[in-house]
Order: sequence, then structure tokens, then C-alpha cells
Amino acid sequence: MPSTQLTFASREAHHAWLTAQAKLPAGFRVGTTRFDFTPREAPKPARMTLTLIALDRPTPDFAALFTRNALPGAPVVIGRRRLDAPALGAVIVNNKVSNVCAPGGVEASERICAETARQLGLAAGEILPSSTGVIGWGLPVDAMVAALPAAAAALARDSILPAAEGIVTTDLYPKIRCAELGGGRIVGIAKGAGMIEPNLATMLVYLLTDLAVPRAALRAMLARAVDASFNTISVDSDTSTSDTVALLASGRVPGVDHAAFEAALTTVCRDLAEDVVRNGEGVRHVMRVAVTRAPNTALARALGKAIVNAPLFKCAVAGNDPNVGRLVQAIGKHVGAHAPDTDLSQLRLTLGGIEIFAQGVFQLNPAKETALVAHLRSAELYASAAPKDGVFTAPITFPPHERCVEIGVDLGRGPAAATVIGGDLTHEYVSENADYRS
Amino acid sequence: MPSTQLTFASREAHHAWLTAQAKLPAGFRVGTTRFDFTPREAPKPARMTLTLIALDRPTPDFAALFTRNALPGAPVVIGRRRLDAPALGAVIVNNKVSNVCAPGGVEASERICAETARQLGLAAGEILPSSTGVIGWGLPVDAMVAALPAAAAALARDSILPAAEGIVTTDLYPKIRCAELGGGRIVGIAKGAGMIEPNLATMLVYLLTDLAVPRAALRAMLARAVDASFNTISVDSDTSTSDTVALLASGRVPGVDHAAFEAALTTVCRDLAEDVVRNGEGVRHVMRVAVTRAPNTALARALGKAIVNAPLFKCAVAGNDPNVGRLVQAIGKHVGAHAPDTDLSQLRLTLGGIEIFAQGVFQLNPAKETALVAHLRSAELYASAAPKDGVFTAPITFPPHERCVEIGVDLGRGPAAATVIGGDLTHEYVSENADYRS
Repeated sequence: MPSTQLTFASREAHHAWLTAQAKLPAGFRVGTTRFDFTPREAPKPARMTLTLIALDRPTPDFAALFTRNALPGAPVVIGRRRLDAPALGAVIVNNKVSNVCAPGGVEASERICAETARQLGLAAGEILPSSTGVIGWGLPVDAMVAALPAAAAALARDSILPAAEGIVTTDLYPKIRCAELGGGRIVGIAKGAGMIEPNLATMLVYLLTDLAVPRAALRAMLARAVDASFNTISVDSDTSTSDTVALLASGRVPGVDHAAFEAALTTVCRDLAEDVVRNGEGVRHVMRVAVTRAPNTALARALGKAIVNAPLFKCAVAGNDPNVGRLVQAIGKHVGAHAPDTDLSQLRLTLGGIEIFAQGVFQLNPAKETALVAHLRSAELYASAAPKDGVFTAPITFPPHERCVEIGVDLGRGPAAATVIGGDLTHEYVSENADYRS
Repeated sequence: MPSTQLTFASREAHHAWLTAQAKLPAGFRVGTTRFDFTPREAPKPARMTLTLIALDRPTPDFAALFTRNALPGAPVVIGRRRLDAPALGAVIVNNKVSNVCAPGGVEASERICAETARQLGLAAGEILPSSTGVIGWGLPVDAMVAALPAAAAALARDSILPAAEGIVTTDLYPKIRCAELGGGRIVGIAKGAGMIEPNLATMLVYLLTDLAVPRAALRAMLARAVDASFNTISVDSDTSTSDTVALLASGRVPGVDHAAFEAALTTVCRDLAEDVVRNGEGVRHVMRVAVTRAPNTALARALGKAIVNAPLFKCAVAGNDPNVGRLVQAIGKHVGAHAPDTDLSQLRLTLGGIEIFAQGVFQLNPAKETALVAHLRSAELYASAAPKDGVFTAPITFPPHERCVEIGVDLGRGPAAATVIGGDLTHEYVSENADYRS
């Protein structure tokens, strides 16, 4: 859940807030460039943005987590190798083409690293590559190499906003979160709107800090922060082949307290994770499921995921329809299939704080129904409008508020708890993914 | 897959075919009646159909399987008790209200059984109750009791079609399949369009036969037939709280060969299961995933389910978009999360018989892209039309053909295989489940 409860009245107001968050920590520069190209596999013009994040000096203190998808992209394959590198000096990111299982994909990505290194006076093994976009297409390597000098020439140390804007695909707006502590700062950016149910890492997320934290501590803290943030969300239950979270520490500001650093890192990760859901493809309602008094954390989280991934319940939420029978269905499906020995006799459910199920039966009446509809409406990000051409698009380019559909699942049977964040299922999601040829 | 490859040019042609399948086996009668009522929980008028299936004499030879959802409906709770009854004489089914976790739900359902028994001169314990519809609402017991005599008076032994029509909710058309063997017949009907990913049994399915098969053999054969049919489908990954498959044998025709009976029963179940998907909420393409050379059957089936339940791939299919990267994502997600030791180096994928992935990389080119689009279009059941009011509805009330999107997943790593049937994800699904208040 966000550390703040923000509302924005316009894209300009949101942009001003992003700009205020975007100050780069000491020791980093970012630059971007855009160019047009034609993919080999489906010849029609496309536009790519290259985003370069460079350290003033290569750092040994970095951490990264990658997708658990068993068919990962070439940049993930290379990124895993980089974990053993003595130091990292830059990250090069492209959108539009994800370079997953493309013929010659690893070689293509290594060539981009080598050319990036040449621009910056580094070794190829000091470059972390990332790609996001269509799965199945190969990188337009020559066009990318030709564009690299422009990205390097654009490197500037004032703001991370160009990078937050450069890495997006179907995102409606850029996502930046930051924390200040110990005389330095942590700033993070995220990209991701669909194919979002991370498994140990997610999407493209870059976290930069000038605070000095050694590699081993950095990696342990990032693993825990990601588990408590990106691993608790789902937009559409699909797990990307390219998910990457990377954390780079320039080490310019010594002496930070590690516990304070981990708390700040976790907050930044949680805020970015919720941003990713709120900006998820077609998301009109963010759902926050708080599972409490569960026998164990794994079951608590799995139940939360089962609820935010249940298509019929997601559709009901989209329609501001408190069809809580579908919520019960989702819980019963998961427990019946995966934890059949769980005692559900103490199950108590709330929606918007209103009790809807207790003592083994529904607790419904027309007055509650009216209140439930009001809660769902208050959490709606925008009203869906039926378009003339049948293609539904989101009318917003900023997050108007941070209210959620609040779902409480009290199992009454243990000490564990978990919170899971997800989105609804809307015409805008189907239009994004079916009405346009990808 | 269906035992036949049918096409229908009109609702009338489909109705004529249904009528030809619908002859009741000897020893059975069906009757239905409709009436209006107002639910307590959300006061607005609703219409219910009562469907009565009666045996001329109670039979000890019956079998039934129920949902594995951990929060089952009252009729499922009662149905499990009935498995120990000496004999069954009738089934009473209502739609519109599913009687799941409603206060006093079991007592309400038992009262319906008792009143049904009184109409038929049977004991209450000889009646199997079923309910389908909104989860959370309670049965309108008084209105149902008042309507029961009309259902009993309508009992007739010519056709099962009134029952196939009586049990539906959001189904676009009734579903009947039959087999003739040994001088008798098996006839089955199914209801179900959404909340369809059965787990050991599914939806409402009633199978009637006049062939004499003793109870123990009947139950073993039904379990195997359901596992090979209803347990291999998914419309939307949701598992109903009311799923029921019941098989009643009147025993009028002795001497049937058990192996032949099981083969015919399995065919009827498979045909009905595929009918349920083809008539699934918003389904415009049926997908058939054939997983071959898998290490074991469980993984083969789970991979098939992972593909037909992946929202992004489902949307791509809906848009006739051969975005096969999303197919690879779905396979990689499942293997990465649930079977990370699986060797995918021999993975070979086909779509419509066209190789799209082999030797670890995509095998794509513009000519294949054109052929893949043509395959997807040929399997489309109807073209989606953008409506003026933004509410998408299916323009068909019959299945125009039985062609599928044919997906081949060859793991090259074992002896096991499985076929899974699923549907795409469309505006019509979202409209069905979000645009109307339930």
C-alpha cells in the first residue's frame, strides 16, 4: 500500500509530482533516444526507445532478480551471468521488442552491451541489458547500434524522469517513487502494465541509490523487499519472460543504517508495485485483499492471489457489482484444490469494511448491497465509456486517486497474514489485448 | 473432441438435431415449469425454472460426482449424503438461485426434496436436489413448493429436451448428447457457460440410461469418464460451488457389455464437455491444446490448462492475432512456477499444424503469420460487433461449427499426453459478467 494517499486532478499535476520525485542520486546519469525500425517477423513500422542508465564509476554493489518464467528472454539469461561480474557500470534498456527465444537473441543482446560499453569506456561485462515488448521478435541490432551514440550524448544527471518515460510500453504514465535517508536517497522507476504476476521478480524495475551498502547486504535486502512488494501483485495472472528488478548503489554517501535502508527500500518497492497495478492494462479498480489469521503465510498469499485472479469476481468489480458469491467461489476453489484440509468454519469476509460472510453463511441485505455498491464506485479510477468503434481506451493519463476496493478475509485459524494487490477485468483490458493486432 | 464434426446453419437446424438426440431411455420422464419470484437479498423480479427428472421405479444403480470447491452449495452437501441411499427416484433442479452458503440452505433444499417426494409417492431421501444461479441468494421455498405440482403434471416420457432447456442460466442453447448400444441408450444433458473449470466433476450434467449396470461399476466408470472429459476443460478458470454430474440407470435393458458402455459413456461426456466450452460465456474460439511426449499426464494436463487459462493469450486468440509469444509465456510461467526441473530444450509448438517454435527459438516469418491468421479466423464462431450501447452480446443461439484453434505442444521428453479444451477471452465475456448487474 502506498506510503502516501495521493490524488491528482490532471496530467500536469501528476507530472509536477513525478518531477519532484525524480532527482537522481549522486553518481548516476540517464539518457534516452527514439528511432523507427521495421521488425523482420511482421513487417510494419515500429518505434523503439533506448534508455541508458550510467554510473560515473562502475560499482561492485548491485543486486538483481529475474523472472522465474522457464522460457526467459536473452537479457535475463545475460543478466543472471552479470550477477557474478566484479562491477556494473550501466544499464541499457529497449522497449518494443523483448528478445525472448529469438534466433541469435543472446548474441544480439551481447552486441548491444559491447557497443554500449564502447560508448562509455567500459567493458561489455559491465553492462546489464534489458528488453521489453513483443515476445518472439528479434532485436533490430543495427538500428540500435546506430542510435546508441544519441542516447550516450543525452546522458544527464538531473532527473530520472526521461528513463521512467523511456522504458514504458502500454503503460499510461511513468512510475517513480523515492525515499530520502542518511543524507542520500533511493529512487526507483517501474515499467509494466500487462503480463503481470511476478514470481520472485517482476517487470522492469530500476532502483538507484547513492547510499553505500555492500553487495551481499544489498542482495539480501532486495530479495526481501521484492518478496514483500512485487511478488504480492497481479494484474492478469500472466508472468512475463522479461521481469527484472535491478538495484545499483553508487556508494557516494557512506554510513547508512542498514535497517533504515531496508525499510526505505521496501517502501519504495511497495509503492512502485501498487503503481504498476493501478496503471495495469484496463485496470479501473485496484483491489487490496488483506488475508488475516491464516495458518501460514503461503496460504494467506495464495488465497489473496486466487481472489484477485478470479475472472468472474474481477468482472463483477469492474461493473461495480458486489457479487460476493463470486468472491466465495474463488476462496472455495483455491482451498478445495490446494488446501482441502483448511478449516473454513471461522471464515469472515468484509468488503469495504462491511461484513458479508460469517458463521458459514452470507450476511447480506438490501441496505448492505447499497453500501457495497457505493464502496465499489468510490474506488473506480474512471468510468468506462462505450466508444463508437467498439475499441475501449482508458481516458486518463495519470492516477486520479489511490483508493482501493478493500477486501478482508479473516480465516480465524492462525497467526499469519498477507496483503495482495490486483486489478479488475474490463473491456479496456480486452481492447488493449485483442482489438489491436500486436 | 466431438465424436462428430457438426455444422449448423440456423437455430432451427440445431433444434431439429437436438430433438433427434433427445429420446428418453426407457423408464424415465421429465417435466418442467416456470414462475416469477422476488429474491430477499436483492429485491427485483426474477424467473425460475423447475426441472423434474423422474424414474418410473427408484433405482439402486446411480452415480454422482460433485465440485471440489471447499464452500459447496447445500444441494451438493445433500447430494453427497444421497450417495449412501438405497435408491434414487428423481432429480429436482432449479436455476436462478444456487443455494450456496445461504442461511438455512440445507433445510430449504431438504424441504424441496420432501415436497417433490410427496408429489411422486417417494421418500425424501430418494430425491437428488440441484440448484444453479446466483451464489449468496436463498431459495424461494414457498414459491417453489407452490410450483412443484405443475412440474409433476408436466412429466412426459418422450424427450429430454424440456429438461435440457429448463436447467440453463446464461447458456445460449441447450446441450444434449446420446449414444445407442446393446439395445438401449445413454442420453446426457449439460448446463454451464461461466464459472467453468471443473475439479473432479462439473456444472450440472445429467446422464440417463436404460442399460442395466450395477451401482459399483457405474460409479467407477463415471469417475473415469468425467476425468477424461469435464476435468479437461476450462472456460474461465473459475470452479463452481454447485458442480454436479449424476448418472441414473433405470436397468430396463439387461446384458450390456461394460467396456462398450464405458466407451459410449466417455464419448457422451467428452461431447458434452466440448459443448459446454463452445457455449461458454463470450467464447468466440474454442482452443484445443494437445500436449504430447510429456514426462507425465499431470504435467501434460496442467500445461494445457495453463495455456487455455492465460488471459493475454486468450485475448490474442479472440482478436485472431497469432501472438505466439504469449503462448510461450504461458508455458514458461507454468513450468517455472510448478515444474522448474522440466527440460524444455526439445519443446516444439504448432498452431493450426504450423510449426512456430523449435530448437529453443521461434520459427516465424511473414508467410506463416498470414497462415496463422487464416487458421484463427476459420475457427471463429462469430464476428464480434461493436454495439451502440457498449454491451456486447453473442449474435448466435446455436453452434455454427465445431472447428477449434488447434495448438500442439510437443515436449519431446516422455510418454504422456493430454488434451485440454478452453475458450478465448472476449468483450462478450466481460459484458456478460460486468455490464449487467447480477
